Amino acid sequence: MRLQPPQQGRLSIGLDVGGTKIAAGVVDADGEVVERVPPLPSSATDQAAMLRTLSAVVEELRTRHPGVVAIGVGAAGLVHWPEGRIRTAPNNTYRDLPLRHVLQDSTGLPTVVDNDANAACWAEYRKGHSASYMAFITVGTGVGGGVVLADRLFRGRTGIAMEIGHMIVDPHGGERCGCGNTGCLEPLASGPALGRYGSAAAAAEPGGMLATLAGDPAKVTGETVSAAALAGDPGALAQLERLGGWLGIGVATLVNLFDVELVVVGGGVAEVGDPLLAPIRSHFARFVTAAGHRELPDIRPARLGPEAGWIGAALLALDQEEAGTA
Amino acid sequence: MRLQPPQQGRLSIGLDVGGTKIAAGVVDADGEVVERVPPLPSSATDQAAMLRTLSAVVEELRTRHPGVVAIGVGAAGLVHWPEGRIRTAPNNTYRDLPLRHVLQDSTGLPTVVDNDANAACWAEYRKGHSASYMAFITVGTGVGGGVVLADRLFRGRTGIAMEIGHMIVDPHGGERCGCGNTGCLEPLASGPALGRYGSAAAAAEPGGMLATLAGDPAKVTGETVSAAALAGDPGALAQLERLGGWLGIGVATLVNLFDVELVVVGGGVAEVGDPLLAPIRSHFARFVTAAGHRELPDIRPARLGPEAGWIGAALLALDQEEAGTA
Repeated sequence: MRLQPPQQGRLSIGLDVGGTKIAAGVVDADGEVVERVPPLPSSATDQAAMLRTLSAVVEELRTRHPGVVAIGVGAAGLVHWPEGRIRTAPNNTYRDLPLRHVLQDSTGLPTVVDNDANAACWAEYRKGHSASYMAFITVGTGVGGGVVLADRLFRGRTGIAMEIGHMIVDPHGGERCGCGNTGCLEPLASGPALGRYGSAAAAAEPGGMLATLAGDPAKVTGETVSAAALAGDPGALAQLERLGGWLGIGVATLVNLFDVELVVVGGGVAEVGDPLLAPIRSHFARFVTAAGHRELPDIRPARLGPEAGWIGAALLALDQEEAGTA
Repeated sequence: MRLQPPQQGRLSIGLDVGGTKIAAGVVDADGEVVERVPPLPSSATDQAAMLRTLSAVVEELRTRHPGVVAIGVGAAGLVHWPEGRIRTAPNNTYRDLPLRHVLQDSTGLPTVVDNDANAACWAEYRKGHSASYMAFITVGTGVGGGVVLADRLFRGRTGIAMEIGHMIVDPHGGERCGCGNTGCLEPLASGPALGRYGSAAAAAEPGGMLATLAGDPAKVTGETVSAAALAGDPGALAQLERLGGWLGIGVATLVNLFDVELVVVGGGVAEVGDPLLAPIRSHFARFVTAAGHRELPDIRPARLGPEAGWIGAALLALDQEEAGTA
């Protein structure tokens, strides 16, 4: 325990800007949550309205927490670093939005804007795990992630590194990806992919648990599959095995390239736990190179859940501000 | 031009230890070749003989070049960093050889031992190209490479990062890899793969140039295919297109993950030039994510040829020694 932590009293606002909602709150320098606000609707089509919402949340939180010294934003899409310019986001209409500049100007506070999966990766690193070389993969509507190398978040030259969902794992098969390509990991390993696998399984077995739970095979979602799997349904478990198999293949490539000591798996789909983690681990062990000649990294579940995005963004801002580079 | 370069007169010995031969020489701090020795045979089975050869070369070069202050070795296989311990090498019998320790003890000189593709990557970075974020891929008997991030060679936690040949690109098809897995890039994109593609093409067209050049379809090698391609044979060009396609897919994943500004392609197979580079570029452009929303990195041929390994190893040793960390 530090008697006089240098960051004592310093707080940071975190914002996670998604396609449909904005999550936000305040953390201290240890990443402890000081306040969280109820999720706010995010307008996918009205950029001005979205910016007004962000400003209002920031002002409200600053009023209640005078110790706030920085703002961090995690945003879906390609975010250029360190400019914090959102180049493109799949579920929002904004294009080339200089969000960092806008927020810094309107609030006067040092601000960082990073990719949402990078922010979540940083939260898992700072709060959940202690590995200097750590990959994070998040499985939800999409597949994303980040990596910490030598205790620093890796961003590549312009901030758009670690597009984990777009590793090419099946170039001549596979579904078309939201990015327009085929062969990407995302359309084989995301929540919607799990729903698709579940729909096909339900259609093939109309009296099975998946079809019964959803009412209609076409209505099976990733959540249906997870619920059925947790109830022990073999058909649902097989779909998670398939999804986890693809993720394990992706993790093998990540480890072959980055030589990390830990892989953390988060996101909504991963909340099902072992039915997904077990096939990730087994496929990883089968596909990683030279498995017999190296120490294999652990593959562990994320610890922070859906709050990782805004908590990580807030911590990134504070860590950056402390380093004097924000 | 520096009038008094701090490294003036400082020389370094570089050694490239492969499965069948050892290449070696001396460079100055700018990477200029001061002397190169004719390639020496390397014993794949007799570790003591291999170490005697290395020591003899080092002693001989030191005698002629008193300015030598460091030794660098590039070695095939998994090499732990910074210990310079060769964990395993596909074409040598040594296992867990602490080569850095052995050479440092016997010569009294600061020594670094790194993976041969890492060493070649460093040579291309230091001598050939000026990109702070640069990936290097070498296509020969195997497929390997390295990456420079923020002007530093990236090695991962233990030195075994960047196993580019073992990215999983075709998990449910593809040939078995030398590493024992299936789905790796290497068996689809190496020199032997090119020979295999060429053999099949020659068997399908017994009167074609490939079959004629090799005498027997089974005798077609990667070199045969390259020679026929340079003579304009459409059948040979199609095989390089296939090989380059797989490499382009691998490069897309690398760029999606590392966000580099430059990709350099080297190794014996790449010496054929455009017939391989063109399909790498086209497949890369097709498979990289968000191509319309980013600046695409250049894909350029390597500049140093087969000497990149020992030159890069020598430079790594000198750069390391200069930084005071060898």
